[in-house]
Amino acid sequence: MSAPERLSAAAAIAELAEGRLSAEALARACLERAQARAAISAWASLDPERALALARALDRRGRPGILKGLPVGIKDVIDTADLPTEHGSPIYRGNRPFADAACVAGLRAEGGLILGKTVTTEFANRFPGATRNPHNEAHTPGGSSSGSAAAVADFEVPAALGTQTGGSVIRPAAFCGIVGYKPSFGEISRVGVKMQSQSLDTVGILCRSLEDLPFLRGALLALEGRALAQKGPPRIGFCRTPVWEAAEEPTKALLERTASRLSAAGARVSDLAFPPTFAGILEAHERIFFFEAARNYAYEFEVHAAQVSEVLRTRIGAPGRALPLALYIEALEKAEAFRAYCDDLFAEFDLILAPSAAGEAPFGLESTGDARFNAIWTLAGTPSLTLPAGRGEKGLPLGVQLIGRRYRDETLLEAAYWVSLQLD
Amino acid sequence: MSAPERLSAAAAIAELAEGRLSAEALARACLERAQARAAISAWASLDPERALALARALDRRGRPGILKGLPVGIKDVIDTADLPTEHGSPIYRGNRPFADAACVAGLRAEGGLILGKTVTTEFANRFPGATRNPHNEAHTPGGSSSGSAAAVADFEVPAALGTQTGGSVIRPAAFCGIVGYKPSFGEISRVGVKMQSQSLDTVGILCRSLEDLPFLRGALLALEGRALAQKGPPRIGFCRTPVWEAAEEPTKALLERTASRLSAAGARVSDLAFPPTFAGILEAHERIFFFEAARNYAYEFEVHAAQVSEVLRTRIGAPGRALPLALYIEALEKAEAFRAYCDDLFAEFDLILAPSAAGEAPFGLESTGDARFNAIWTLAGTPSLTLPAGRGEKGLPLGVQLIGRRYRDETLLEAAYWVSLQLD
Repeated sequence: MSAPERLSAAAAIAELAEGRLSAEALARACLERAQARAAISAWASLDPERALALARALDRRGRPGILKGLPVGIKDVIDTADLPTEHGSPIYRGNRPFADAACVAGLRAEGGLILGKTVTTEFANRFPGATRNPHNEAHTPGGSSSGSAAAVADFEVPAALGTQTGGSVIRPAAFCGIVGYKPSFGEISRVGVKMQSQSLDTVGILCRSLEDLPFLRGALLALEGRALAQKGPPRIGFCRTPVWEAAEEPTKALLERTASRLSAAGARVSDLAFPPTFAGILEAHERIFFFEAARNYAYEFEVHAAQVSEVLRTRIGAPGRALPLALYIEALEKAEAFRAYCDDLFAEFDLILAPSAAGEAPFGLESTGDARFNAIWTLAGTPSLTLPAGRGEKGLPLGVQLIGRRYRDETLLEAAYWVSLQLD
Repeated sequence: MSAPERLSAAAAIAELAEGRLSAEALARACLERAQARAAISAWASLDPERALALARALDRRGRPGILKGLPVGIKDVIDTADLPTEHGSPIYRGNRPFADAACVAGLRAEGGLILGKTVTTEFANRFPGATRNPHNEAHTPGGSSSGSAAAVADFEVPAALGTQTGGSVIRPAAFCGIVGYKPSFGEISRVGVKMQSQSLDTVGILCRSLEDLPFLRGALLALEGRALAQKGPPRIGFCRTPVWEAAEEPTKALLERTASRLSAAGARVSDLAFPPTFAGILEAHERIFFFEAARNYAYEFEVHAAQVSEVLRTRIGAPGRALPLALYIEALEKAEAFRAYCDDLFAEFDLILAPSAAGEAPFGLESTGDARFNAIWTLAGTPSLTLPAGRGEKGLPLGVQLIGRRYRDETLLEAAYWVSLQLD
């Protein structure tokens, strides 16, 4: 057995189930790693004594449920009754919600151990937290699920929850070289998750192995977690997306290479370009996001304006507030047409291949990077995931994004499993 | 001028704007009425000193915004930072949220005065609160927005917020003889509103005059509140709905009579029946509601099971938990097809006429009544409203429901205004 903190979630669950590993030993290994790697600043709050007490209780209960005592990190825009929930904002410093978010309660009900809260950008928006990329501390880990991505990539926890409104799960997962998964819109409960955009926000999962996802997804949906079925080569649509020109050359080369390799391995790969009517689809995403966020932060803007970041106030709040209702409605209707268009695509394809991000994680912590390669699919409501796919010129991870049909998440996971076997 | 507490919201706003009425005098009149009518049990929490202090502050600030100091009641599933938020559940007794819900902050930003919190059934679900129908205290006011409907009908506050997942705004408004309005799904922020069903929950408005709605809607959407335009007679689809047989005879007669009268007044009224594929559409509503609610209450079910009502645990939680994912997805997809079908209907019609409820408010407080006449349109995501339409055989109010095209709420309000002029 590897060092416990290095085990994937699926592998750890197997060890916990067999009794070869205790929840306490696994939690301790993760906590020691987190302590040793405090410079990464992945955690917004971490209380080792509390976590170990929970782990011992899970051991006494025989490591129950789907998760058997697995430690999970929770993005700090998600409520926890026993740890602060600060949303990456000074407004919420020390805030203790009364109740757990439903997703947290769901994990606990299936034997999940909430190890701690992970750093988020301010309200899962743009203003960054202190987290560093574990592959190179001078670079951003991406965001907004910054701490979740960094902690998982850095072996401080096997899995974590994040949220995605634009690209907040897939992008940091790609930047940190791990697996990120954004489920179909709406399936996983958002109760107790700070809402930024009712039309876009989605709870997602960050982990180190595709095989972890059925367990975590099963716990979150209160369904059985079952292993991924082996499927033959899928029909793949290679979608460079309307923002292909924003992709860096090594990303373009990676995607072209991946398409060729998957084709050589037996997949039927064909190019897929949006019709002109959806070439500007990202504008609809921005309008919906801005209009809704401007109203969803009404309390913060009205009561604590001085503690809201400049970027949220002026780059999102002000234009969102000024946007006419008719343009918001037009964007909602365009998004609906785009979702129907994407649904229809999957008559021809089993999955879509697209960039996970423009390139490697940018230098510095000021920006968490460009979310546009993800925002398209967040708007589409489609399930998407990123798989690690080697390194770029700066030695930082790259990923490839796979997108499935809306509400057919299991089909995506199974097709992605075939793809993962063809990657390095 | 009428007694201040009898003024409609629109009339009160006009008086406040002109300085003929102070926010303090209006709040005091409402509070005195609420105190005199304590037997109705409309309020979950009401702190007169706090409300009067807020009113005086609004007067000092010149009665700002769209609402000019208008008192508003807030259903107790909606967070308020300065009043408890108990969700009609002993689990949340004394719960004080850190922040206001975005809709509450939006009202305050436009000069709204949060008078107090109104009684809700447990979690806006089925287990009733103590509120009585102000027209006959032996009868239910309907629910789940029980206190909001009763307080507004009883002149304890000119307007209140409610929420609707099935029929929780329209039905109690009809039972209490007032105007209820459920906006298009998704438009009004749900931040800080206890989520029961992500696919269905909608914040709504209860008031005594249709002309109040543009002001409250304007404040909630951070848009200008403007008066309703005068429009000519609309094209009306008279939809008896697939549950027509559940309507009591006086309700059937009321609807037939209303259709005739509107036709005689110049409207083009034609019958509208769903095609067979949507005859069972209410099953989709139930599946979505049960599947999502079972997971959204994960914290309450896991941590406080003994304090959850029997009805929520066994009638919703258990079947919702047992429902296979595939059947939930099927229901989501059916709902989407139904929304598209409803959108298309409005090529032929300007509004749909349908029952607001099966009949008058049932006797007793045990059941808040049958939500099916409303759940159809909640699922459709269409804006809908109920207008008072006389009394039934027991002397209790009846209403008629008007439904508009999704995202065309202003068109519905204007067409409904023409209708309201033809009713008694």
